[in-house]
Amino acid sequence: MTEAATARRSRITPEREAELYAAVLDLLREVGYDALTMDAVAARTRSSKATLYRQWGGKAQLVVKALRHTKPVQDFDEIDTGSLRGDFHALMERADDAEMEQNGALMRGLATAMHANPDLHSEFRSQIIEPEIADSRRLLQRAVDRGEVRADCPALEFVAHMMLGAFVTCAVLDDRPPTAAFLTSYIDAVVLPALGVPTE
Amino acid sequence: MTEAATARRSRITPEREAELYAAVLDLLREVGYDALTMDAVAARTRSSKATLYRQWGGKAQLVVKALRHTKPVQDFDEIDTGSLRGDFHALMERADDAEMEQNGALMRGLATAMHANPDLHSEFRSQIIEPEIADSRRLLQRAVDRGEVRADCPALEFVAHMMLGAFVTCAVLDDRPPTAAFLTSYIDAVVLPALGVPTE
Repeated sequence: MTEAATARRSRITPEREAELYAAVLDLLREVGYDALTMDAVAARTRSSKATLYRQWGGKAQLVVKALRHTKPVQDFDEIDTGSLRGDFHALMERADDAEMEQNGALMRGLATAMHANPDLHSEFRSQIIEPEIADSRRLLQRAVDRGEVRADCPALEFVAHMMLGAFVTCAVLDDRPPTAAFLTSYIDAVVLPALGVPTE
Repeated sequence: MTEAATARRSRITPEREAELYAAVLDLLREVGYDALTMDAVAARTRSSKATLYRQWGGKAQLVVKALRHTKPVQDFDEIDTGSLRGDFHALMERADDAEMEQNGALMRGLATAMHANPDLHSEFRSQIIEPEIADSRRLLQRAVDRGEVRADCPALEFVAHMMLGAFVTCAVLDDRPPTAAFLTSYIDAVVLPALGVPTE
């Protein structure tokens, strides 16, 4: 759904929606998922709880919508450079390091919460993981169609593990947040060779 | 240090040490790192706090020692099958799925705690990450020496990201804990091809 359509459905302006999502993410960073309440969101954003529930259904949905709204790479679909390496690099050029760092911190906190809150996990899967995997499948399918990657290449089913894995392990292994430059090196050193794509 | 040497230094038996580490990990799973206190460990294990501090120095050290004691793959050094694929597969054959699942859950909880507790992070780096990276470097160096992997292969520096990444992303992407079978497929589909090693 476009932002305009969301705003029409919800009768709140896109600016107000963005402001509300930013407040939810601030609260999430401050207190964590378990301690984040709809009361606190209502107070922080000067909304009524009834509006929040009517609009988003619940805490898990609101948090995942807020995360989705601020994901580092938007507009996946506009990327089509004619080569898989070009597409991956274009994606990384659109990634914002500061947003990736903030997202990484939020994801660490949410990984634990997701295991304790199945509703958060299923919302996160359907609203964030599945659409991202679908986006990435389209990009990979074009590479298969162009003959860059063999259709039966076993690495195809692990592209999300490779990319998300590099994103999350960088903090603990290298003691620094993931950056677009780090992920681009990883794509050239690991992802493309695993897919059998030459990196020259 | 061998278990016998640790016991000599500490004047506690290896059995008592193992019992104590198991109690620490139980507490960690029950209450998380932040709420785990040396008082609780002392009460649960019927030890004195003075003994715990003398023996381990502090909470971060005790928790990391407990984790290290129960890591899923031990005796890395005994593995030398003559091929990189053989070595990776042998490692996975020694991994215990139940222990991996428990470790994965602990690691998720600790990832957040590590960012808030630099002492825990540095203890974890020096006691767990660095020794594992050193073990894995020796295994990879043998593959380079045998001519299986080019010495300048760019994927060599990302092996830890690939393996740990698959381990941690499996829960969120596939909705199941990592297993030796999953990691073995990942090694064949991703790690070996990225290193330029044929998987036949």
